[in-house]
Amino acid sequence: MAKKRETLKGNMLIAQSGGPTVVINQSLVGAVLEAKKYKQVQKIFGSLHGIQGILNEEFIDLSKEKKSTLELVAQTPSSGLGSVRKKPKAEDCAKMFDIMKKYKIRFFFYIGGNDSAETAHIVNEEANKQKYELRCFHIPKTIDNDLRENDHTPGFASGAKFVAMALMGDNLDNRALPGVKIDVIMGRHAGFLTAATALARQYPDDGPHLIYLPERPFSMEKFADDVKRVHKKLGRCVVAVSEGISDKDGTPIAALLTAEVEVDSHGNVQLSGSGALGDRLADYIKNKTRISRVRADTFGYLQRSYPTVFSPVDAKEAREVGKRAVQIAVKQNVDGSVAIKRKKSKPYKAEFKLVPLKNVAKDTRHMPDNFINKQGNDVTKAFINYAAPLVGPLPKMGRFKGKPVKKK
Amino acid sequence: MAKKRETLKGNMLIAQSGGPTVVINQSLVGAVLEAKKYKQVQKIFGSLHGIQGILNEEFIDLSKEKKSTLELVAQTPSSGLGSVRKKPKAEDCAKMFDIMKKYKIRFFFYIGGNDSAETAHIVNEEANKQKYELRCFHIPKTIDNDLRENDHTPGFASGAKFVAMALMGDNLDNRALPGVKIDVIMGRHAGFLTAATALARQYPDDGPHLIYLPERPFSMEKFADDVKRVHKKLGRCVVAVSEGISDKDGTPIAALLTAEVEVDSHGNVQLSGSGALGDRLADYIKNKTRISRVRADTFGYLQRSYPTVFSPVDAKEAREVGKRAVQIAVKQNVDGSVAIKRKKSKPYKAEFKLVPLKNVAKDTRHMPDNFINKQGNDVTKAFINYAAPLVGPLPKMGRFKGKPVKKK
Repeated sequence: MAKKRETLKGNMLIAQSGGPTVVINQSLVGAVLEAKKYKQVQKIFGSLHGIQGILNEEFIDLSKEKKSTLELVAQTPSSGLGSVRKKPKAEDCAKMFDIMKKYKIRFFFYIGGNDSAETAHIVNEEANKQKYELRCFHIPKTIDNDLRENDHTPGFASGAKFVAMALMGDNLDNRALPGVKIDVIMGRHAGFLTAATALARQYPDDGPHLIYLPERPFSMEKFADDVKRVHKKLGRCVVAVSEGISDKDGTPIAALLTAEVEVDSHGNVQLSGSGALGDRLADYIKNKTRISRVRADTFGYLQRSYPTVFSPVDAKEAREVGKRAVQIAVKQNVDGSVAIKRKKSKPYKAEFKLVPLKNVAKDTRHMPDNFINKQGNDVTKAFINYAAPLVGPLPKMGRFKGKPVKKK
Repeated sequence: MAKKRETLKGNMLIAQSGGPTVVINQSLVGAVLEAKKYKQVQKIFGSLHGIQGILNEEFIDLSKEKKSTLELVAQTPSSGLGSVRKKPKAEDCAKMFDIMKKYKIRFFFYIGGNDSAETAHIVNEEANKQKYELRCFHIPKTIDNDLRENDHTPGFASGAKFVAMALMGDNLDNRALPGVKIDVIMGRHAGFLTAATALARQYPDDGPHLIYLPERPFSMEKFADDVKRVHKKLGRCVVAVSEGISDKDGTPIAALLTAEVEVDSHGNVQLSGSGALGDRLADYIKNKTRISRVRADTFGYLQRSYPTVFSPVDAKEAREVGKRAVQIAVKQNVDGSVAIKRKKSKPYKAEFKLVPLKNVAKDTRHMPDNFINKQGNDVTKAFINYAAPLVGPLPKMGRFKGKPVKKK
């Protein structure tokens, strides 16, 4: 991360990696518009589908995109340049540097989560080893909110808003047709997104009534007991469960369900894109209780790609990390990542800091203990205080005062 | 439906039944506000959880709700009075009339789909038989859009907007991380809601690329062939499938999956609240093709209860059918249902007609043949022309012009 040559000139390459979010294009457009300000940056290339696009020499010229197109893409969900899940080997890097050399690429920006930060870190280390002069930068993004060094990550607050609103509606659906409803939310190792469903609560009896996170061992017996207790009290029960919940040995409950598991090159087991976990939990409750109406929904990819539902704070910060990454890389001539820190002052304000690539690469950040209740089946007020300013205002749900008519 | 006594005075009872929608409370509030105008209507009671609330004598006094509460509830998804799935027997009706008599109820409004219309019809027939003077009215509601006599039903256009927007995001997600994506949409016997996913298409290669409806027999082999063909051409494939797809013998594919099926008192098999159908289709494609990335999402209850995503036309019409039902019942002193017809003139305009209860009860309306393509795997332009004005404007998705950089 030390300052290198005083001036570095050349073309810029930017790409997106990992799971999309609804604001990841804000970061891309923020970076592109900022890069246009600097004479050190000549052309701005976009690589299609992350580092796979570099290996395939599949670039588009982002300098030629109109401002109106850039702004429309910024508001559009999912990765405008396409994405990939791929961890590069040393030989991949060598091939990439050969290609980068041909295109005079000296600035490389990779937008993504911890796996993408790991990729940026590997590319950076290999560039140093193989003596290819490159400013390698990671731009944070993940609905999972599990990047180290960051108070929170772009994409999280919008995903959080989507799931909070989904639970508002689902709670009302369950209030209309009572029973047990289990909602499975994304989040492999970190429960932040599942925890954000707690923001749906507006009235004392509102769900989610139980929240299960990957940070605490999940016990089927305890789960059934919890559901029975809530159902006895309210006549209904809405549950938010993270897709990554694991048993006491750390094995994901979802992975226990299938003989064959799909694993990507970062070693991640497929959890999303299947309703099996929700169905299994629903079947268990049906068998263990006398409750007749038990349903499960798995929110799936909607929570990371649904258009128009986004947090304004999130969109602004996503734009800002793209902008800052380019600013720091070009003006300070260093590699690294931009991390979002929270100022201690109120109301909520973010600041942006340069951090070393190795500090954000690979490992994930988990929910801190003070965000999870003692019983491991809900969040605390501290979590609500943390998440609410990021998500921003939520719609108010109406309810009749409902004075009962005296029975005759 | 013949005109009865010249004047009928008494209290009014209103209730909601069946699956909720995001605009069902508009109908409720439309009816309540209209009823306040007539001296023939004295008190306005709301029954909690449909006819179950009558049997339990669980009423709230809606005359006492503030205007601001009514308006907030009108904008809130799901059934504000609670719902139920219950078909009344003659003895249930006798018990209900005994209770209605105590509360001087002479006007009864039941908001719901075809099963709820059947309930209203049964209550009406029994009231005639048992000589309990009651104006019995059905107010249409169903995201399935399968009520006879209606051009479309309140709730459908908002559900259609939700799924169209979901497919917009999901198509972009699939474009970023290519593979096969299967989305399971609600719709037991009618494919209207699944068909509405076609409104997501804005660019020539946009998904959904295949649409399967309950109106055509579903063949697994044909499905796999279709997917392979699209995937070969585009390198990806997004599929919208109705939960109600059935084989050539009419057995729902979802029902083939489980030994035990849950059936309500109207004879409906549980299809929603489980990811099993999507998972089975995904497994089949994985086994039948060499495509590695195959995912399925089941949209579940979100599509009928997600807050803030609604069609303005739908909200307005939902309000209107509630208002008209009261207007007709009180002023014309008749029973029946309000049906939405479409004027032949352009631009789109609706009109509202009184229809007999028996004409909307029980049986469902299906997609007309001219809405479905020959191959049975897509909709036609005629369907788009039908649905687009109901759903209203959809957000524009941005895409880079993406001029490829010449390979070096």
